[in-house]
Amino acid sequence: MSNADRPDFSKTPLIPAIAQDAVTGDVLMMAWMNEEAFQETLKTRRAVYYSRSRQKLWRKGEQSGHVQELKALYFDCDADTLLLKVHQVGGAACHTGYRSCFFRRIDDAGQVVTEGERVFDPEQVYGTQTG
Amino acid sequence: MSNADRPDFSKTPLIPAIAQDAVTGDVLMMAWMNEEAFQETLKTRRAVYYSRSRQKLWRKGEQSGHVQELKALYFDCDADTLLLKVHQVGGAACHTGYRSCFFRRIDDAGQVVTEGERVFDPEQVYGTQTG
Repeated sequence: MSNADRPDFSKTPLIPAIAQDAVTGDVLMMAWMNEEAFQETLKTRRAVYYSRSRQKLWRKGEQSGHVQELKALYFDCDADTLLLKVHQVGGAACHTGYRSCFFRRIDDAGQVVTEGERVFDPEQVYGTQTG
Repeated sequence: MSNADRPDFSKTPLIPAIAQDAVTGDVLMMAWMNEEAFQETLKTRRAVYYSRSRQKLWRKGEQSGHVQELKALYFDCDADTLLLKVHQVGGAACHTGYRSCFFRRIDDAGQVVTEGERVFDPEQVYGTQTG
C-alpha cells in the first residue's frame, strides 16, 4: 500500500468522501470527489462532490440551501479516501429528509429497522417526493 | 435515486463500507465489500472486506488479531454504501499502527498535519515496515 503525501487523483479520478458531523460524530453520507471538487471544497470551505449520475460537480446544498460547512478535512493512509468534518446547515444531509443517509439498520435477525427522524419533508424542500 | 430495501450488489458488485468506532464515533477506515463479504460479516459479527489488490476476501485482523467486532450495521439511502459500528480489538484499525486510517489533516494553509498517535509498531505486528 502506498503512503502518498496528499490525496492522489492520478490513479483514481474519483475517490470516496465521507461527511461526518464535526460535533456529534454522526456519519452523515458518503459521496465522491474528483480533483476539481476536492480543490473547490478546500477553497470555498463548503463540501463540493462529483455527481456520478449527473456527471458534473455537485455543490451540496445548492438547491436546498443545506450546505455543508467544512470544519476539517482528513485523508487516509492510502491517500484515496477523504473524511470531511462538517457543519450540516438545515440539520439533514440526506435528500430523504433524514439527518444521516444511514438511517436504516440491519438487526441481528436480518430485519431492516428505520432509525432516526425526518428533519424535513423532501417534498417541501425539493418539490418532489424523492428530490 | 433509488430507495432499495436492502444493500444491492446487483448494480455494483463492490460497495464502500465505512467502519466507525461504536463508542467514540471515530471514523476508523473505509474499505470495500462484495456480497460474500457482506453476508459473512453479518453471520460472523466480524468485519470482512473484499481486498481489491489481493482480489479475495479480507477477514480484517486475521493476521494481526486486530479484528473488528460488529456492533451494528447500517446502509444508506441508495443502498450502495455500508456503515459498520465496530469494536476495534487492539485499538488500531490502520495497518500503519494509527487508531484511524484518517490520521492526516489538511489545514487551512493547505499543509498536511499528522494527528493522533501510533497505537502499535507495524514492524512488530506484521514483521515489515508497511504490513
